[in-house]
Amino acid sequence: MRILVTNDDGIFSPGIKALGLAMAALGEVYVVAPDVEQSAVGHGITVRRPLRFKHTQSAGFGEIPAYRVDGTPADCVVLGVHLLGRPDLLVSGINIGVNLGLDLTHSGTVAAALEGTSLGIPSIAFSLDTSGEELDFTEAARWAVRIARLVAEEGLPKGVLLNVNFPPGKPKGVMVTRLSTHRYEDTVVERLDPEGRPYYWIAGTPVGEEEEGTDLFAVRRGYISLTPVSLDFTAYGVLEGLAAWRGRLEADLHPLL
Amino acid sequence: MRILVTNDDGIFSPGIKALGLAMAALGEVYVVAPDVEQSAVGHGITVRRPLRFKHTQSAGFGEIPAYRVDGTPADCVVLGVHLLGRPDLLVSGINIGVNLGLDLTHSGTVAAALEGTSLGIPSIAFSLDTSGEELDFTEAARWAVRIARLVAEEGLPKGVLLNVNFPPGKPKGVMVTRLSTHRYEDTVVERLDPEGRPYYWIAGTPVGEEEEGTDLFAVRRGYISLTPVSLDFTAYGVLEGLAAWRGRLEADLHPLL
Repeated sequence: MRILVTNDDGIFSPGIKALGLAMAALGEVYVVAPDVEQSAVGHGITVRRPLRFKHTQSAGFGEIPAYRVDGTPADCVVLGVHLLGRPDLLVSGINIGVNLGLDLTHSGTVAAALEGTSLGIPSIAFSLDTSGEELDFTEAARWAVRIARLVAEEGLPKGVLLNVNFPPGKPKGVMVTRLSTHRYEDTVVERLDPEGRPYYWIAGTPVGEEEEGTDLFAVRRGYISLTPVSLDFTAYGVLEGLAAWRGRLEADLHPLL
Repeated sequence: MRILVTNDDGIFSPGIKALGLAMAALGEVYVVAPDVEQSAVGHGITVRRPLRFKHTQSAGFGEIPAYRVDGTPADCVVLGVHLLGRPDLLVSGINIGVNLGLDLTHSGTVAAALEGTSLGIPSIAFSLDTSGEELDFTEAARWAVRIARLVAEEGLPKGVLLNVNFPPGKPKGVMVTRLSTHRYEDTVVERLDPEGRPYYWIAGTPVGEEEEGTDLFAVRRGYISLTPVSLDFTAYGVLEGLAAWRGRLEADLHPLL
């Protein structure tokens, strides 16, 4: 089995090192990751400028081939697949910090897994709650191997990726969850630069309801959350309710057509 | 009614000019948009560096207040809401080019609407198929006003945004659709720089099945597509099927706990 390992914290992050080295237990690993931290850049693919793809021995992966890209996590997936071949499994992370609920619309870790999924590759995003203690990926990497092995055995439904969040410390177990309403409530701080001109800094505070059955509920209680995430963002539940809008809009407009 | 207008092509794009000026028919408009084209940067919020927020008379909005931000579309929404007040409606676009199907995971136009939706503001993303002819936003802007008026009257369900795509030319009507499998199939072109070192350029070709009931189907046939998009990306259809994974993973691991 060939496994493509990527992330959005950058190739020198301890999270991807732990994940890449652990995945070697399952198959042939190759690492393609951003050269610098890319948090909050989202799912962009860089098409307006060229990209570099550089072998990076210094990242600490030993015999595992590792490359850095001056682009986004999604760029890394596209270049990795094109230049090193299609993997049987894609793993992204282990992110420094959770990716829960509405965080997913911002997450580069998940963006890489979305890109893999849209290419038809079984893809998993791994994130660790690092709020509690020192940065230690040992437990998370151990569970990541088992989760990846299960995905490799069972596959994932078409158009679905697996989003995994680890609690701090030793997990009590696993919960299969839906996404919560977890998100960052943004505030804006205004300051003046040395020349007296204003600038603004966005700062986010995590908020969200800990409803049972959600990823946030699981992680806050010390469990690993496993959340299936769909590539299809259609709000199917409201499609029928909106059907009447067609008539209302067209009635308005036929005189103009 | 207060209407926040943003986009991802940048404040000097003809698409946002057409949209902003047209929306003035519905209420008090203010424009906050990126200073440069931000396509494919995704839904990131910039938290690692400060942002500027500059009044921009030269963008051609006349009496309408218009500000540019050196950040992403989502940054524009956050700063616009914090510095100019919460709008009753957010409109993003009109994007130069469609945002259909799987494009949504990359789209800055939609990212702005996702951000608005997560703040509880009814939000609409507008995009125009510009593949056909000369860039003309007249028809699209006219329909955008009617669609925005309907959303202002009826509201949108919680956690749902409206993604609208206009066909080229004069629309035949409106279809309420689900998302298609439309996406860009990426290829990678390798070249050598003047010093003989390789660089890579990602290029995408649009692909996707024109299934009936999808946004792609509508736009290809000359209709406007109206697609409700959910903030909740959980793949509910497979949640139950994955429930058994809990036992399998925990059984494996209890000896280690």
